Parts: sequence; structure tokens; C-alpha cells
Amino acid sequence: MAKVAIVMGSQSDWPTMQCASGVLEELGVETDVRIVSAHRTPDRMVEFAKNAAEEGITVIIAGAGGAAHLPGMIAAMTHLPVLGVPVQSKALSGLDSLLSIVQMPAGVPTGTLAIGEAGATNAGLLAAAILATNDGALTDRLKAWRAARSDAVAERPAE
Amino acid sequence: MAKVAIVMGSQSDWPTMQCASGVLEELGVETDVRIVSAHRTPDRMVEFAKNAAEEGITVIIAGAGGAAHLPGMIAAMTHLPVLGVPVQSKALSGLDSLLSIVQMPAGVPTGTLAIGEAGATNAGLLAAAILATNDGALTDRLKAWRAARSDAVAERPAE
Amino acid sequence: MAKVAIVMGSQSDWPTMQCASGVLEELGVETDVRIVSAHRTPDRMVEFAKNAAEEGITVIIAGAGGAAHLPGMIAAMTHLPVLGVPVQSKALSGLDSLLSIVQMPAGVPTGTLAIGEAGATNAGLLAAAILATNDGALTDRLKAWRAARSDAVAERPAE
Amino acid sequence: MAKVAIVMGSQSDWPTMQCASGVLEELGVETDVRIVSAHRTPDRMVEFAKNAAEEGITVIIAGAGGAAHLPGMIAAMTHLPVLGVPVQSKALSGLDSLLSIVQMPAGVPTGTLAIGEAGATNAGLLAAAILATNDGALTDRLKAWRAARSDAVAERPAE
Amino acid sequence: MAKVAIVMGSQSDWPTMQCASGVLEELGVETDVRIVSAHRTPDRMVEFAKNAAEEGITVIIAGAGGAAHLPGMIAAMTHLPVLGVPVQSKALSGLDSLLSIVQMPAGVPTGTLAIGEAGATNAGLLAAAILATNDGALTDRLKAWRAARSDAVAERPAE
Amino acid sequence: MAKVAIVMGSQSDWPTMQCASGVLEELGVETDVRIVSAHRTPDRMVEFAKNAAEEGITVIIAGAGGAAHLPGMIAAMTHLPVLGVPVQSKALSGLDSLLSIVQMPAGVPTGTLAIGEAGATNAGLLAAAILATNDGALTDRLKAWRAARSDAVAERPAE
Amino acid sequence: MAKVAIVMGSQSDWPTMQCASGVLEELGVETDVRIVSAHRTPDRMVEFAKNAAEEGITVIIAGAGGAAHLPGMIAAMTHLPVLGVPVQSKALSGLDSLLSIVQMPAGVPTGTLAIGEAGATNAGLLAAAILATNDGALTDRLKAWRAARSDAVAERPAE
Amino acid sequence: MAKVAIVMGSQSDWPTMQCASGVLEELGVETDVRIVSAHRTPDRMVEFAKNAAEEGITVIIAGAGGAAHLPGMIAAMTHLPVLGVPVQSKALSGLDSLLSIVQMPAGVPTGTLAIGEAGATNAGLLAAAILATNDGALTDRLKAWRAARSDAVAERPAE
Repeated sequence: MAKVAIVMGSQSDWPTMQCASGVLEELGVETDVRIVSAHRTPDRMVEFAKNAAEEGITVIIAGAGGAAHLPGMIAAMTHLPVLGVPVQSKALSGLDSLLSIVQMPAGVPTGTLAIGEAGATNAGLLAAAILATNDGALTDRLKAWRAARSDAVAERPAE
Repeated sequence: MAKVAIVMGSQSDWPTMQCASGVLEELGVETDVRIVSAHRTPDRMVEFAKNAAEEGITVIIAGAGGAAHLPGMIAAMTHLPVLGVPVQSKALSGLDSLLSIVQMPAGVPTGTLAIGEAGATNAGLLAAAILATNDGALTDRLKAWRAARSDAVAERPAE
Repeated sequence: MAKVAIVMGSQSDWPTMQCASGVLEELGVETDVRIVSAHRTPDRMVEFAKNAAEEGITVIIAGAGGAAHLPGMIAAMTHLPVLGVPVQSKALSGLDSLLSIVQMPAGVPTGTLAIGEAGATNAGLLAAAILATNDGALTDRLKAWRAARSDAVAERPAE
Repeated sequence: MAKVAIVMGSQSDWPTMQCASGVLEELGVETDVRIVSAHRTPDRMVEFAKNAAEEGITVIIAGAGGAAHLPGMIAAMTHLPVLGVPVQSKALSGLDSLLSIVQMPAGVPTGTLAIGEAGATNAGLLAAAILATNDGALTDRLKAWRAARSDAVAERPAE
Repeated sequence: MAKVAIVMGSQSDWPTMQCASGVLEELGVETDVRIVSAHRTPDRMVEFAKNAAEEGITVIIAGAGGAAHLPGMIAAMTHLPVLGVPVQSKALSGLDSLLSIVQMPAGVPTGTLAIGEAGATNAGLLAAAILATNDGALTDRLKAWRAARSDAVAERPAE
Repeated sequence: MAKVAIVMGSQSDWPTMQCASGVLEELGVETDVRIVSAHRTPDRMVEFAKNAAEEGITVIIAGAGGAAHLPGMIAAMTHLPVLGVPVQSKALSGLDSLLSIVQMPAGVPTGTLAIGEAGATNAGLLAAAILATNDGALTDRLKAWRAARSDAVAERPAE
Repeated sequence: MAKVAIVMGSQSDWPTMQCASGVLEELGVETDVRIVSAHRTPDRMVEFAKNAAEEGITVIIAGAGGAAHLPGMIAAMTHLPVLGVPVQSKALSGLDSLLSIVQMPAGVPTGTLAIGEAGATNAGLLAAAILATNDGALTDRLKAWRAARSDAVAERPAE
Repeated sequence: MAKVAIVMGSQSDWPTMQCASGVLEELGVETDVRIVSAHRTPDRMVEFAKNAAEEGITVIIAGAGGAAHLPGMIAAMTHLPVLGVPVQSKALSGLDSLLSIVQMPAGVPTGTLAIGEAGATNAGLLAAAILATNDGALTDRLKAWRAARSDAVAERPAE
């Protein structure tokens, strides 16, 4: 049974969004990765969003760039937690993506992460943290993942 | 038979969007004004967008603020020309609205106007200009409207 | 046992953050509201963040403005999901708050909501959605809350 | 008889603007492509704008970068629908182009598309949509073009 | 014989532009103040710009807001020095006005001043400085004006 | 006797500023090119600014990047017309340079051109236009320069 | 003997800059408050900056708005530590002030604080911290000031 | 005994921060360089900040990028002067870093330098200037360093 859906607007978002997929794999969380375009495949988006809960999805991560409508539109059609990743855009470096995702009106939240790969990684981690609120073993794996990263920080910079 | 649909995300957009309605009324163009929220009433939006052409709508004007998804999402579900009006938002003065509407990916256009009331007025005028491409009488009314405005420009500023 | 902690940097953030508190109350979710300043009371922040999980907190909502460090610093010291609310700042209207909260490096996520009151309301809703992943009754209340809001959208704007 | 004029301020805008030309060609729409500089050839611009309607142009697409005055100035001198494409500029990445084109005062609209190639493609599509309001065959070709693009979206990203 | 023309896009620019007029009056420089709208009265603009030199104008000050095309378009049609004043706009506080005026392509300069009243005053002063390059008496008055302002700076702030 | 001084903050500004030098050379205007750093050689700057008029300088072009203080500080110490060129900076692409130069307070104008090479070229042209207000032969050369550029604009883009 | 000089470009900066003065008074640090305008009184600025060390000044706080050159120019003419306060400007809310002060080139630092009153208060505190590096009693007063502020943070927000 | 601590959030900040280290070495100031991550090693950060004074640190330079919390959080836990260096970030070029560091609330100052290497160099110079307020020999070295840089400015740009 899939737990975290990772959806994105196009193939070109995958180099960014695979960071979400990768960290969830490291944490042993099942994912379901799909291309769902708000603008090119709106019907697919509606169907995905409305059926996600029934299909066993618990958290949705959606990445998009430019006029990035995917996270917010999915959030409008599901009660599941939706996390948004602003993909770095060409002209405006993702500032457009960020504002299009984060500035949602009261009533329909998208939990937004940083622009680009760091944001995708963090979407994976936040999704795991959400699942971990009800999964002690995942909590332990998440703590271990974080501890390992902390331990890896050197005392002084290498020349 | 209605020609231009004017839709907006919420009642709070009406003071802006009535400028579109007003100028179309001046030009004798029939309008259909509705509240259609991408985020609160996504089903209504889908239904509206998919049926607009059949209902006799020729041009759609959509206004929204913040993470303004309405114009782009409607454009994803109709082949009719869609014009977007960025409503001035509280924190970011409509810069978020503008980028969310204008930065659409290749394939799904929204013709975007200026932030706020000027943009709404111009959406009405551009919709009329589109209808006028096939309506000589409207072309004449549009030319007259423009000429009257030009004539109203004083030679020198009043103190 | 408290479920959602709502913390903020100062009393002046309360008019914003009470929107989070209000919506959680409507949804029947227990909250624990505190002032925790990253800059003026760093010890209190460390203690809060490190003990939150043991104290029965499941989700943390943190609001701050300007150089808004509170959400990210709490996220650095807990494995719980942390949601950040950028409070609208005086000079830069919350753009500084937003970037300070959302642009976290890979490894430490904060799920960021919109600037100001809409963001605080949505932080409450997203926290509820997170709790609802394991609480069917809350899921039902959340769905009802959303349905009521959708139903309240009028067909046409009132003059 | 030409239907859509595509004008641009300089040769350097052509790599962007040919996306408009290309998509209109795909859709079987006749185009007339010219260099018309608001700043270097203002007389040519005035002559073009004033005579466009008589020359059988129905929609005008104008692209320019930086202090991008071409779309707005043409719109001031014709009643035809004018679409503006902000060409990506060197220092400010097209933010200057975008604001110079979109922020038109009430009375003279330019329907503005996204910065760069996506915007040029979309200008072509929107021009086609405008022509299609009175051309059933073009409507069919436009629908087919859109359907083909939707069908081309893969279910899952390729590694 | 008028020396400095002060033109603006609309009556609403006058509260700003009268600062230019005022300082030139203080300096004993003759002015010719007009409303010339690039968008609403393009013919008037063309006529003004092309005839300014023959009519005895030596320097042109042009103020406009939003998609501010007036200074650049006048500069495209005269060899006289053109100074641009970005009028503070409603939504974007004049950032759009500034970029629309200052980001001119190579070949057609507009000497741009600050946003708003300070910019209008400075446009007057710079126009005077330009005229003073060939007018010793005006040079003396300009020096005196500046010296008086310097002398008026108090040593310490008043409570 | 030199007519136009071209000063810049450092050697690294020369690739930009030589565009000003180049166009003035084309127009037969004598220039005096110097490095004058507001921050590293403030005494040289003061001496330059205060003596420029006596040394036969008529117009000053100053280029600088980042916290670009050179144009405004020179303008504070001379009654000559000062034109400012915002050099493109590394992190903020010249937005910092632009605002540091253009946003001068009332009383001390700098006529600001576009960011980068286009701005430097235009500073040269505007300086020439200023000198031409009292030099018929230069006026003719300036008109010819502009006409040649207009004539060079092709009718249609080359593939 | 004065220790901290607080200088500002004009009387209008005083409501902001008195926050620096106020906190230094609370901490028992002697101040010398002056109006020194980079643009209107450049000679006074040069004299002030070059003589500050000899006059017993140890730290300089400079506040200015818009094209804010005062902090950087003083820093160019003294080896004393210079702290800059960006005063909130009318059109751009202090973003211009901030960039004009902080983006100094390598070689001439200004330690920049936040825009507006918070920045002025913090300039006072940082100046005190600098003096405290060699003054145990001031260190104690500074610690006490900070502790009192921390103690004043309530546990929970008041309704 | 170390005098200036240079801390940074990660190894990737070292190419920037070594400019601070380098200039302090040139000036004969002892440094202590460490990696201290606010987000990955919060305990190390707390320990560092609280013990810095006792360990003989007099000034702290902290560099970080993106949601840059390190300088402000250290400043919250020490009374020593803290200087912040905004490291240039990938998507937003350091604007996020700058605002996250400089926009501190009243009570906890960070003296902020320019984005990137210039800022790091200047942090070193400002730290030296702070130490020099109580060290005549360092004052002399600092003056000599500055004089040498001034002397190195050529009169004219090299082709």
C-alpha cells in the first residue's frame, strides 16, 4: 500500500523531485511517483486528487514551476496533507513558483518547502515526519537519519 | 446569449472585477458574472470551464489574487480565449497574483492584464476587441469609446 | 493531552496567529499556545523544541516575522512536523519573513504557509490534516468544515 | 490574407518569437513576421499599427525586452487585440520586460504572456484561440493540438 | 521662448510633476507644461516629440507611471535630451514605472530620476544644469540654489 | 579641451564603460576617462568633482556597481550634469547598482541609464545630446548616427 | 569624551535614529548626534569622517534612506567601525536604502542593521557591544539590558 | 588566544568565508575557524555561542546562505559583537540570505555585510576595526592596509 504520492507537472521536474523520492526510499517509506499536469492533464489531476485518500495515499508531495498550480489545486480537492515544492524556473529562478504555491488563500493549505532540490528533499522528510506521528519505527529511522547527518558535520572546513 | 463570462474567486474580488463588467456594459457587450473559486469550489470551476463554450461564452475573464490559479486552470479546460486579472493582494500588492497568472507554461495561455482595477477595465476592453474581430458594429463602438477617451485628455494639467 | 503547539516570537504576532488557534478550536483540536522567542528567549526555545514530543505535542506551528528564525530553529531540534507562518513585517510586508522561513537547507524542513492571517488559518488546517491521517473522526470534521466553506460560496457577487 | 502579425523590436528577439510563429504554422494560421522597433523605427511602428487592420491583420503579437514599449504603443494605435511577449532580458531576466508590458493604464490593454519562449508559444496559441472564436475548423485544429499534447504526458517520469 | 518642456501622461501625474515645474520657476527657467499621453494620445505625442526642437524646446522632462512609455517614446523621436520621472504607481509603488523608463535599449537614452516627487524636483534641477552648460547666469543661480540648501542643513536634529 | 569625463569605480567597470567612450568617439566628442573610486580613493573623487568644471568638463558620466555611490557623490560636489551607469553586479544583477544611483534625494540629481552596456552606450549618447544643445555640428552628427541606426533595422528577422 | 557618533542625512531621519540614541542612553554610553548629509553637505561629511577618530569617537552609526550613501562614504574616510541604518523610504520601503548601504565593495565595510527603528535600536546595541569588548562595566550593563528583555517575554500571549 | 571566530553553516560556505580568514591573516589577527550549523548541529551552535566570550573570542563572524539563521541565533546567545555574511544562494542569489540575516528584530543585532566574497572580506575588515578600537598597533596595520589599497588604484583603466 503506497503511503506518499510524489506528483509533478512534467518530466523536466523529475531531476528536482527525485530528491523527495530518494530520501523517502532511504527512510523506508513507500512512494507512488506520477506525472500529473494541472494544465495539460487537468482531468488526470482531478481524478488523482479526489481518489488519493481511497487509494491509500496518506501524504501528497506536488512539485511544479512557474505559474505552479498543481499543489494548490490538489489541495483544493483532497483533505490529505499536501506539500508543495517550487521547482526553479528559468527566468525568475523559482520566485514565481514559490509565490504561486505558498500564497494560498485561507481554507486550502499547501505546506511549502524551499525552491529546488533542497525543497524536494525536505518535502520527503516532512512527509516522513507526518507519517511518523503514528509510526514509532519510522520515528526511529527518521531520528537516526537526522543524527547521522549531524554527526557528519566536520568541526572545521577542509581547504 | 451571453458573450463574455466574468468570473472571480471571491466576493472580495468584485470591487476590482466590476471594472470589467462596467466597460463591457458601456460597449453593449453581454456579460455573465459569477463567483467561481478554484480552491473552494473546484467542481464548479471544472463544470464552468468545460461547458463555457457550449453555453455560448466566447471569451472568459477571470480575476484572482495571491496564489491566483483560477485563470490558468480555466484555460487548461477550455479552448476559449482566457484573460486573467491579477487582483491586488494584501501583503505582496499583487506581485504574487501577477506571477501566478502570467507565468503559464507553454501550451496553456492566459492573456494577462495589469494588477487591479486598470487590469480589470482592460480585460473588458480586450474581450471586446476580441469579439470585435468579427463584429463591425462593436468595432465601431470600440473605436468611438477610445476616441472619446482620447478627446477627453486636456492639453495642460489643471492646478 | 495537547496535540498542536502554536508558538510565536512575540505578543505582536498574536493577532495573526490566533487564526491558527481559532480554526483548530473549531475543529476540536487541542492546542497549546505559547510565546517562544528565538532571539530573546533562546533557552526557552531549545527547551520547548527538545521536549515537545515528550510533552505530547504532535505538530508544531511557529509564526515569526522579519528575520524569522523560530520555525527553522525549532525544526532543527525536533523530529515533529513543523509548520511556519510568515508574519507580515512592516517594511518588507513579510517577504523577509517568508524567505527566512521557507528557504531551509536540505535536511531540516519547515512546511511554510502564506504570509499573514491566511497563512495562520492554513497552518491550523494543515496541522489538523496531519492529525487526521490517524483520526477518522477528525477527518470527518475536517471534511465537514471544508464542505461548509464550499457551500458558502455564492453563485454571483453581491453589489 | 495574413491573419496574425508577429512583430519584434530586434533580430535578437527572433529566437524567442519564432515559437509564436512555429505554433501558428502548426495550426495552419497565416502569419506576417516583421521587425518593428518602437525606439529605433518609431515611424515604422506608427505606420504598422495604424494600418494593420486595413492590411487584413486580425491579431497582433508583439515581443520586446527591457523597457519593452512595443506592445503597449501598438495597442495605443489600433483597436485590434494586441498580445505582448516579454523577452528575457540580460540583467533583470525579463522582470523589466514583463512589468513594462503588463502594467498598462486603463484604456489600452495588452494581453501579456509569460517571459520568454513559453510566452511566445502561448501568444501564438492565444492568437489562434481568438481567431477560432469565428472559425470552426481552426477550433477543431486547436482542440486537436491540445489533445495531442495532453495525450503525450507520460504517466510516470523516465529515469 | 520656452526652454524646458514638462510633459506627463495624465492629470494624476501633476502633483508629482509640479515639483519639476516649481524648481525651474525658482531658477528662472521658462517651462512649457503639457499633458501628452503615449497611450491615449499617441498622435499628440508624436507631433510633440518631432516638433519640440523646432518649437524652441531644449530639454524635455517626461513623467509617467506603471508601464511608463512616454519618456522612452519621446526619446525615440527627438535628438533633444529627455529626462524621465517614474511616477509612484498604486500596486507596485513605482518599481514598474522605474524599470519601464530606465531600462532603455542602447541607442535611445532617457536620463532617469528617482521615483516620485524627489525625482521630479531633480529632473528640474538636471534640466537646469543642462541649460547652464551654456548659460553663466543660470549657473550662478543654480550654484546659489544649491548653496542655500546646504546652508539650511541644521547641525543637529530638532527633537 | 575635454568635454565629457567618464569615471568609474574600478578597472572591472571598464568593459561596461568603454561603451560610453566608444560612442562618444564615434560622435567626435572629446573624453577624459579615469578611475575614481568613491570608496577607495575618496580624496581623488572630491578633488575630481570639485575641479571638473574648471578643468573644462561639461558633462560627467560615472559608472559603478553594487552600493554604487560614485555618481551621486560627484553630483553632490559639482553643478555640472552627472549621468549614472549602474554596472551589473554579481549577486543582484545590478538591481542594487540601479537603486543606489537612481534613488537620489531631492536636490542632487543623477540622470540614470540602464544597467550594463546598454546604459553605458546611452550615457554617451545623452552626454552628446546635452553638448549638442549648444553645438549645431554635433547635433547633425547625432542625428546622422541615429538615422543610420534606424536605417539598419531589417524589415524581417533573419533565420 | 563622546564615544558613539550618531549621524543622519536629514531631520526626517531623526524619528528612526533616536532609537539608537535612546538605547545608548539607557546603557550609559555617551553619544554625539549630528545631521551630516552626504549629498547636501559633502564637505561637512568629509570633515566629520576624517576627524572622528581624533575627536574621540570610537564607533559611528550612520542612518540614511533611498540612495543611502552616508554610511559607506564615511566608512571610506575613517578606520573606525561604521554601522549603517537603512531608513524606510517612501516608494520602496527601504529596500533601496538597505541595498545602498549593505552592498559595499570589498575593502570598505559597513555593518548594516535592519530597515527602520529596529535597525536603529540594534545599531545602538551593536555599538555598545563593540565598546564593551574593552569595558567590563558596560558588558555588565549590556548583559543586564538583554536579560531584562528576556525576562519580560510573557509565557503566553494576552488576548 | 583567538580573537575572531569565523563560523559557517557548511563546508560549501568556505570558498566565501575564507575571504574573511584571509584578510584577518593579512592584518595579523588570530582567528578560529569552525563549521557550526544552526540547523544540523544546533547543540554545537548553542555551546559555541554561550562559551565564545569565555574562550577568549572577542568578535564573531558568521556566514550562512538561504534561510540563514546562524548569525542571528548566535547573536541571541552572546553579548559579543556578531557580524553576518550572506552567502550567495543558488536560486535567489543571496537575497534570501541577506534578508534572513539583516532583518533582525530590535534587541538582537547582527552587523550585516554584502552578499558573497566582498561581504566576507569586509566582515574580516570590520572585525579588525572593532579590535583596533583598543589596539593601536592593529589600527596602524589597518590604516596601512587601506592606504595600500588606495594607492593601488590606477589613474586610468587599462585596455
